[in-house]
Amino acid sequence: MTLAYDGTNFAGYQVQPKQRTVQGVLEKALTKMTKGTHVHVDGSGRTDSGVHALGQVISFDYPGMIPAPSMLRALNSLMPLDIEILNAEIVPEAFHARYSAVGKRYMYKVARGRYTDPFKRLYTGHYPYPLDVDKIKIALKDLEGTHDFTSFAASGGVIVDKVRTIYEATVTEDQANNELTFEFYGNGFLYNMVRILVATALEIGNGRRDQHDFLRLFEVKDRQQARGTAPASGLYLKEVYYPSLDEIAKETRKSH
Amino acid sequence: MTLAYDGTNFAGYQVQPKQRTVQGVLEKALTKMTKGTHVHVDGSGRTDSGVHALGQVISFDYPGMIPAPSMLRALNSLMPLDIEILNAEIVPEAFHARYSAVGKRYMYKVARGRYTDPFKRLYTGHYPYPLDVDKIKIALKDLEGTHDFTSFAASGGVIVDKVRTIYEATVTEDQANNELTFEFYGNGFLYNMVRILVATALEIGNGRRDQHDFLRLFEVKDRQQARGTAPASGLYLKEVYYPSLDEIAKETRKSH
Repeated sequence: MTLAYDGTNFAGYQVQPKQRTVQGVLEKALTKMTKGTHVHVDGSGRTDSGVHALGQVISFDYPGMIPAPSMLRALNSLMPLDIEILNAEIVPEAFHARYSAVGKRYMYKVARGRYTDPFKRLYTGHYPYPLDVDKIKIALKDLEGTHDFTSFAASGGVIVDKVRTIYEATVTEDQANNELTFEFYGNGFLYNMVRILVATALEIGNGRRDQHDFLRLFEVKDRQQARGTAPASGLYLKEVYYPSLDEIAKETRKSH
Repeated sequence: MTLAYDGTNFAGYQVQPKQRTVQGVLEKALTKMTKGTHVHVDGSGRTDSGVHALGQVISFDYPGMIPAPSMLRALNSLMPLDIEILNAEIVPEAFHARYSAVGKRYMYKVARGRYTDPFKRLYTGHYPYPLDVDKIKIALKDLEGTHDFTSFAASGGVIVDKVRTIYEATVTEDQANNELTFEFYGNGFLYNMVRILVATALEIGNGRRDQHDFLRLFEVKDRQQARGTAPASGLYLKEVYYPSLDEIAKETRKSH
């Protein structure tokens, strides 16, 4: 299933005791549908508290046969207003929302202007200082390719290999709304990586960092030097990419 | 002062004991600035819980001389993120945000589509049924002019005279966002009037009411017959109109 959610009132995607989480809400609704059998939901990845999704992907084994459109309607009718299920599909058994994913696209929205716009505070980061957007565009080119992102990963992560490939890193300016929209498309992202990349890109655009500081930060492999993390409110998980279902089904047959 | 606010987390504009209100937040901040002297704030009118403002106007007597731009900066720095002060001006003593107002403009946003979009739920009403927007456009023409709005006022109001003039009532369609935006510009609005007008207009657009049901409802003067009230989340106080400050100052001299 593909879903959108407003992350504001969730303690993130992943289940946590006594907290309202996206996974928790989904599993509770599915347990209601099965009349008591717990259904475990796998997400393509966690999103933090306040982080939004336009296209989060989840997978689960449902104990029963329900056509996908009926499942979509039934589960949506049990969803709170801050989650909307956009699509449902029956997938090969080998499909797993996290392990089958081959890429992800994140979006980050930054509101400019001196004060925080009340209607944007939960849906953008805010940067009130001057920016040279062309400088940011040039800097983002340095991100494309395969790099060691150690400088851009929140400490405390358990993942050892911090090499990732970014296929595309762009920024567009929406003059009418006085906003910037970043997009990052890559094969995987470390914890807080997008928010740290955005904070660094804004410092480059403001002139507080050198034009090619991303390249230096790849070299030094030091989280302390990237410093800032842009707020969760501006971040959206936009799309998760998978091989075709045929290819996934073939993989299953091979592994049997 | 002119201000914008996201009404979601306020129990409306007007002060209420133990509730978070816009007036309450403003008066508390001003009392902080005066180091303890209470400053009463007058608004152009109340907005209900969940109703937003793009251009609410307030007035108050501040015990001290602060240039308007400094007042703007100082008060904004004490505001929570869901209120933004847009403009500050020193006005003649006779100016009163409510009593000096000669007109108001409200906007109402309706999201269409089968399910509620998580990102719109707090900022639009939602109408999932078919609509003939041209029918709504024709119906809104019936509202323009001076009419008795008894059928469109929430019961419980204390105002006896329910005659108001609407100068302009329009709807525009935003195909890209699948939204309708209503605007109502008039000399004054009764309690819940815009929300009841929108609910009725949508029923006309859906074909559940006659094309010219507004005219019938003016005649019958019966709140029961208009029935629905569109949700607070779609309503925005967009602009409040005043005579020029010169005219207001002249009024003062006359009345002395």
